[in-house]
Amino acid sequence: MSPSRVDEGGRRGAIVPIGGAEDQIKDPEILKRFVDLCGGRRARIAVVPTASERDDTGRRYERIFKDLGARSVQSFEFTSRADAEDEEALEGLKEASGIFLSGGNQLRLSTLLGGTRAAKALRRANASGVPVAGTSAGAAFLPEHMIAFGDEGATPRAGMVTLAPGLGLTNRVIVDQHFRQRDRLGRLLTALAYNPFAVGLGLDEDTSVFLGADNVLEVAGSGAVTVVDPGEVERSSMDVAKPGEPVTILGVRLHVLGTGGVFDLETRRARSGVVA
Amino acid sequence: MSPSRVDEGGRRGAIVPIGGAEDQIKDPEILKRFVDLCGGRRARIAVVPTASERDDTGRRYERIFKDLGARSVQSFEFTSRADAEDEEALEGLKEASGIFLSGGNQLRLSTLLGGTRAAKALRRANASGVPVAGTSAGAAFLPEHMIAFGDEGATPRAGMVTLAPGLGLTNRVIVDQHFRQRDRLGRLLTALAYNPFAVGLGLDEDTSVFLGADNVLEVAGSGAVTVVDPGEVERSSMDVAKPGEPVTILGVRLHVLGTGGVFDLETRRARSGVVA
Repeated sequence: MSPSRVDEGGRRGAIVPIGGAEDQIKDPEILKRFVDLCGGRRARIAVVPTASERDDTGRRYERIFKDLGARSVQSFEFTSRADAEDEEALEGLKEASGIFLSGGNQLRLSTLLGGTRAAKALRRANASGVPVAGTSAGAAFLPEHMIAFGDEGATPRAGMVTLAPGLGLTNRVIVDQHFRQRDRLGRLLTALAYNPFAVGLGLDEDTSVFLGADNVLEVAGSGAVTVVDPGEVERSSMDVAKPGEPVTILGVRLHVLGTGGVFDLETRRARSGVVA
Repeated sequence: MSPSRVDEGGRRGAIVPIGGAEDQIKDPEILKRFVDLCGGRRARIAVVPTASERDDTGRRYERIFKDLGARSVQSFEFTSRADAEDEEALEGLKEASGIFLSGGNQLRLSTLLGGTRAAKALRRANASGVPVAGTSAGAAFLPEHMIAFGDEGATPRAGMVTLAPGLGLTNRVIVDQHFRQRDRLGRLLTALAYNPFAVGLGLDEDTSVFLGADNVLEVAGSGAVTVVDPGEVERSSMDVAKPGEPVTILGVRLHVLGTGGVFDLETRRARSGVVA
């Protein structure tokens, strides 16, 4: 499949990666904002719990989104590639005004959905204006380049991260989640060192970005987003680094943004969300 | 950067990955066909020898393409990321009616060109109709998902291949080169097992595909192209495979195409080049 193209004059829907462990009850700021974006009381949310191996993930999010005021919520389980070709499910997905991918294992998403009609339907929905959110594994899967797995630590080392093709809603960013909680700066830097064209987004838990059609993102949630911009990198040694060796990378720009913080992927400008 | 979009009504140029070790003198069928595609006696070829660490690679291809009748050939060395932002070189690239990337190390291409104005110029040229060819490392770099390195062997095993972002002229295919010579079926299957959406192209040496704007490819050269189509895969175990373990993958379709063989990436239909 090719990247889903936005129709001339149309706008793709927001892309909303969440760093995992989002507050669902006490102060569900992120999920609430997502529901509002999908139409609030008119929202029809499709939940895709495919990344999770727990039976109740879909039902749990159905309750959460209903409690947040969505008009309807439907879970699409997709536990096999045959499921992901099912006509009835695909018709149901078309009705959604917002799509939410749960956490779990991002390789379940890519191996079960990759190349199927369900994946095409998700891409087409986003291209036609439907917001798509994902938490944890669901967040990692949203872009074209997905961090499949990797090692902890702040220093980038050759071979410490494994990239795989994701859903492909955008190739502008590479997302990592549970960022501060699991010490993942090194693996995100390693991912960028292969080819310094995408911007890295390290999402703390209970923290997300809302990436609009204008390629401007805004941070929401209780933690921070570490924006790793390799746009001015002078040198990456990934071409000569041996497995396990530290990778030299010169000239990365880094921003740590709290809630309300903004980053423009076109101009590469950041601004704080704090009003002085 | 986002994928370079083809203008409404426009057609992108051919994408021509070559499996390495292409015949340059005795029977240079592939390079000859490439020059013809770029305008034959009117062809202005830009050579990008960045993947190679040899000083004479650019000059060598300059001679080869001149001997094949191109009107002009210019080499763009790009040995640093600063080079790849150089205004004069970028103006020169705009004049090309065809672009050729040499072999060497594909991570030199991605680390030196990724995210630079030179990479954008290559993408824009192709989107506006200019054919772009690459041999060996240059071939691996052409698509969105690039095989950076990996192990030999016919059995796919978790961790046996490392993917990185490439130039991104298409995300429909993942290319592997020196295919039969270096026993690379396993690593290509592993790459596809992460997310069975792209089609794998295993290119033997002195063998290439000419992938047109219609997403139909035709094989040229003295060897074969192994087309690995995961479109009907029922199951990939990449989500549960441990490092080094064989990966289960059910339902791959495989075609081995000689010169003149055709594969349509839309319909996933293959046909032989042999006239009965």
